[in-house]
Amino acid sequence: MASSNDNAEYTTSSDTSCCTHMWQCLRAIPEKSWWKLVNATKMVKKLAQDDPRRVIHSFKVGLALVLISILQYLRPTFYAFGDNIMWAILTVALVLEFSVGATLGKGLNRILATWLAGALGVGTRSIANLCAEKGEAVLTSFFVFVIAGTVTFMRFSPRFKARFDYGFIIFILTFCLVNLSDDKEKAMLKLAQERLLTIIIGSFIAIMVCICICPVWIGQDLHNQIAGNIEKVANFFEGFGDEYFNNSANTEATHDRSFLHRYKSVLSSKSSEETMAVLARWEPGHGRFGFRHPWQQYLKIGNLTRLSAYKIEALSVYLLQSEQNQYELRSRIQESCTIISSECGKALRESSLIVKHMDKSSMPNPHVANAKIAVESLKSILRTNPWEGAEYLEIIATSTVASLLIDAVNCTEKICEAVDELASLAKFETSNQIHHRGTVQPVDDSVHVITIGAIHPRNEE
Amino acid sequence: MASSNDNAEYTTSSDTSCCTHMWQCLRAIPEKSWWKLVNATKMVKKLAQDDPRRVIHSFKVGLALVLISILQYLRPTFYAFGDNIMWAILTVALVLEFSVGATLGKGLNRILATWLAGALGVGTRSIANLCAEKGEAVLTSFFVFVIAGTVTFMRFSPRFKARFDYGFIIFILTFCLVNLSDDKEKAMLKLAQERLLTIIIGSFIAIMVCICICPVWIGQDLHNQIAGNIEKVANFFEGFGDEYFNNSANTEATHDRSFLHRYKSVLSSKSSEETMAVLARWEPGHGRFGFRHPWQQYLKIGNLTRLSAYKIEALSVYLLQSEQNQYELRSRIQESCTIISSECGKALRESSLIVKHMDKSSMPNPHVANAKIAVESLKSILRTNPWEGAEYLEIIATSTVASLLIDAVNCTEKICEAVDELASLAKFETSNQIHHRGTVQPVDDSVHVITIGAIHPRNEE
Repeated sequence: MASSNDNAEYTTSSDTSCCTHMWQCLRAIPEKSWWKLVNATKMVKKLAQDDPRRVIHSFKVGLALVLISILQYLRPTFYAFGDNIMWAILTVALVLEFSVGATLGKGLNRILATWLAGALGVGTRSIANLCAEKGEAVLTSFFVFVIAGTVTFMRFSPRFKARFDYGFIIFILTFCLVNLSDDKEKAMLKLAQERLLTIIIGSFIAIMVCICICPVWIGQDLHNQIAGNIEKVANFFEGFGDEYFNNSANTEATHDRSFLHRYKSVLSSKSSEETMAVLARWEPGHGRFGFRHPWQQYLKIGNLTRLSAYKIEALSVYLLQSEQNQYELRSRIQESCTIISSECGKALRESSLIVKHMDKSSMPNPHVANAKIAVESLKSILRTNPWEGAEYLEIIATSTVASLLIDAVNCTEKICEAVDELASLAKFETSNQIHHRGTVQPVDDSVHVITIGAIHPRNEE
Repeated sequence: MASSNDNAEYTTSSDTSCCTHMWQCLRAIPEKSWWKLVNATKMVKKLAQDDPRRVIHSFKVGLALVLISILQYLRPTFYAFGDNIMWAILTVALVLEFSVGATLGKGLNRILATWLAGALGVGTRSIANLCAEKGEAVLTSFFVFVIAGTVTFMRFSPRFKARFDYGFIIFILTFCLVNLSDDKEKAMLKLAQERLLTIIIGSFIAIMVCICICPVWIGQDLHNQIAGNIEKVANFFEGFGDEYFNNSANTEATHDRSFLHRYKSVLSSKSSEETMAVLARWEPGHGRFGFRHPWQQYLKIGNLTRLSAYKIEALSVYLLQSEQNQYELRSRIQESCTIISSECGKALRESSLIVKHMDKSSMPNPHVANAKIAVESLKSILRTNPWEGAEYLEIIATSTVASLLIDAVNCTEKICEAVDELASLAKFETSNQIHHRGTVQPVDDSVHVITIGAIHPRNEE
């Protein structure tokens, strides 16, 4: 009995604890949902703040589809959508992309591919119709197999893939639809014409909404990204000297070190830049970008900037070690290294300004010349055998930093040359507008009297 | 007269030359076309040779569409496609992708999104139906605007975009189609059901063709790419020592230097790896990969391999300069640097073998230990102040190489640790199969008696 009682008690207590647990779970649901809602709201806010054009794009998609629904409701005399409204909706939903380049590319691909595949499909169907019923089915299947297989294979060609991938898919789709539809040949021809017209109207609405309401030009984005990447690399070089030689130690509390990590996004920007350059080629002239703007040159500059970022990745290791070492040897090369680094930074900043403002009045070359003079003076210091008595770890760390910095000057020079080339290819002009930047002063060989002007508008121009 | 004659003669000769020119152009057409054809054939051949699975994929797409056309022709009793064949064709053409992961992802996205959007669309239409005609149109437009806008905005969220982007598009599409279709509510419900069924059949055919005929598992591709990238980095390190210290100068004629550039493809592999990892998560278990295979760990290894490639990019600069310098200082550190480099290479090769064969029996750790011992011996050489009398350029170049190599050992160790972690996460087993590789022998501190075994199967195991 006692045992049975115990059991009963145990069961009861276990039941109670189970109930309590469930009750707690139930009570936690509103709280959990509340936190999920708060997190979702935060995410939405962040997405919108990061790029407000996202909100506008969402409005644009809604608007384009509402335009289609108005057309469907009003049924204008020039064209009654009827059952074909589906194609307009499909077209708008699939074609309207974030950027004008992507929308135009997809729209033109869609129209052209539909037209070509429709024509080819009608042709092959006429041939198949010449046979008896069974022969027709076999021949149709054969055509579908061959054409779909061939076009799918062509999609693998990198030359076509970048620009016409969407067109290839639509081609396969339309060709199969025409060949496998139930309709008689004449009815089908009419249907095909109507569908092509619907697709053209859909593409037109998508393209118009995309271009007329706050257009997002992917060319402009590529342009900004390239200028921004050069600037990130410039930020690193401008800050590196002070950071490595601990000149900024006094201001540690207020010191923002984020500029030393910003370059990291440059390392993996290759594929996004290439996609942007392909899409930018679809865009018509806009603002200061012509139809045949030299987008390929942007890719070249991007590649050179990435090479610079790779060097920075190697340099940044020594930044982490910088506080462990002693400072005898380092202080001897401090001045020239700081100048090399800051002049490289300035040259790159000027180059990024040239790109950003499409304005030749920035002058990176004097800074490159200054950096080269500083390299010579660094070399002359190194020639005096400054490592005597230094510890070996310090020697190799310091030599590596010196060597990587000397190498960075070459990289910087190449970037500046590529930007110059872009300026002449895209016919940037010299404006009288003066950007905020330091004064360039020649550095003499002894490196003792260099003055870097404060950052203020140049009055002497 | 003379002048007029001259003119006439000139005109005649110009006419003749024009004719000749046109004739030449006409004659050139077959030749040009021939060359274009030859080039196209070469391109096709190269595309097929680079990856023969492309040809198979093209066959698969053709086959899947033929299957649909057979269904259309036979009209099985369980389902008559009728006009809805279009949806099956659309589904197969859009869903059937190169890899199983992409096909499954798109297929499931398509089915789920169609179902959800269909249900929501029927719901909102019922609400709109409660109003009068004008109110209904306004309410429908309002719903389309709000839902399409919201879902478009959600597409920007990186968390959703990677896995559900296609689903979002299909959701917008289906929702609009249901809301804007002309049909009455009851007819529409039937139509929606039929379409969903057609889409499910289309997805099923696409997925079956993709999985059953020579499936391309994107997880396997990611796996191979990660192993291949580690191997490329290993190739560089294994070759670097001999190349830098010109040990290979004698065999120059037969010497293949391509291994020194192969690492470059690693530099920009980030985005492709990330895409592959996302798609791989859709794949069911296959071969030795479980459903929840640790794909994220592959990304971690990939990132570490890229970090190593960045160091190599910095190192390779000194390889180009290596022939300009003298060899006094360099020969003193030659032995330990060569050992560091080759042991790093071997450790990475063993790690790549672990990944490649999913087999723990490779042993990178002894090689890492050897590399670390060589680092200590390099440091002890550097402590003896070997740079006395050397030229400054040689000092900084040699120190940089030494420093970057010491840094490379850290990177290598991290890669080996990450591979170890992968081996335990994915439960790699130790097999008795012996791969072709060198014998690991402990290196003593004096570095004089190291013997790197010839590359032969280990008999002692």
